[in-house]
Amino acid sequence: MTDRLQQQLDFLMEIDRLKSVNRQTLITDGTRRENTAEHSWHLAMFAFVLAEHANEDVDLLHVLQLCLIHDIVEIDAGDTFAYDTTANSDKDEREQRAADRLFGLLPADQQARLRELWEEYEAMETAESRFANAVDRMQPAMLNHQAGDDSPWVQHGVTKPQMMKRLGPIGNGSETLWTHVQTIIDDVVNRGLVPPE
Amino acid sequence: MTDRLQQQLDFLMEIDRLKSVNRQTLITDGTRRENTAEHSWHLAMFAFVLAEHANEDVDLLHVLQLCLIHDIVEIDAGDTFAYDTTANSDKDEREQRAADRLFGLLPADQQARLRELWEEYEAMETAESRFANAVDRMQPAMLNHQAGDDSPWVQHGVTKPQMMKRLGPIGNGSETLWTHVQTIIDDVVNRGLVPPE
Repeated sequence: MTDRLQQQLDFLMEIDRLKSVNRQTLITDGTRRENTAEHSWHLAMFAFVLAEHANEDVDLLHVLQLCLIHDIVEIDAGDTFAYDTTANSDKDEREQRAADRLFGLLPADQQARLRELWEEYEAMETAESRFANAVDRMQPAMLNHQAGDDSPWVQHGVTKPQMMKRLGPIGNGSETLWTHVQTIIDDVVNRGLVPPE
Repeated sequence: MTDRLQQQLDFLMEIDRLKSVNRQTLITDGTRRENTAEHSWHLAMFAFVLAEHANEDVDLLHVLQLCLIHDIVEIDAGDTFAYDTTANSDKDEREQRAADRLFGLLPADQQARLRELWEEYEAMETAESRFANAVDRMQPAMLNHQAGDDSPWVQHGVTKPQMMKRLGPIGNGSETLWTHVQTIIDDVVNRGLVPPE
């Protein structure tokens, strides 16, 4: 076996650990929290099925690659709950170190490519990353909506202004999807699950 | 919200259930069985990183789409262990009914597109489906190899001829990857985990 193939397989076996990183979101049957590997698959399916609703024309291969790799750094850095401001203060530094180590397992050209995709995802400056970020915020919102009282929004006392700030960037990727997510926000506020202020 | 978006979201919420379909394979830390949603993500990453080893030039978007949707029918049909000949006898019929119902949740054009992709995956007649099938056979082989005594190969008494038959089609997608998988087969036979006959 070539060194190149060995490096590729070492990376692929290492990222299996993403299956053990748990998120706050519950899966739809409510039995357990979602892990980041299955979230990444679900997200890629959201992007695949909903791409026609992107504000700008997007290259679907590029979007899917962003979805597949966007959370790999959580293997070392952990999942940071989007509404946890303390944990988010050192998130960047933790994730940069994680990207160095994890993508560093790959051959140099692929290391550079995946690092570039991940940084593009984080920067939200391309049409593809704006759309991938939009579905990445929409997917947990839909699962949390379904969870009702058990949703992390309720469990962590998230407010409507916090939701608007977190979910608002969906509109940068898709006005159509943001219009829909606003109906979810209105619904959880109207039902008293989330305080309006 | 348009009927079209509603259908798309109904499909996307329904396929969340793939996270509750368990496979025989263990995740690498050995703590639990892998589910089909996270398997589909892992598979897509295998395809992304290993595409250069395909025997023929492949369209990566097309390969990733096949990987993402290839097992969605398991939501209704269940995961059928590859070495279980009894369960495999009615697998096609169960999966066709599942495809009718699940892809049928989508708008007609997307229903047709996903059905077409799934049937292409199953037929293994295109370069993309041969390569996607190759990594779909390789990924569990690598996890099972790592699991040693706890692997489903050992637990179900799988023999070397059964492994050669199941894994041999990897060579139709990638001779390079098949050469590597043969070293795994030799290793588990040499270690006495899998009987040679």
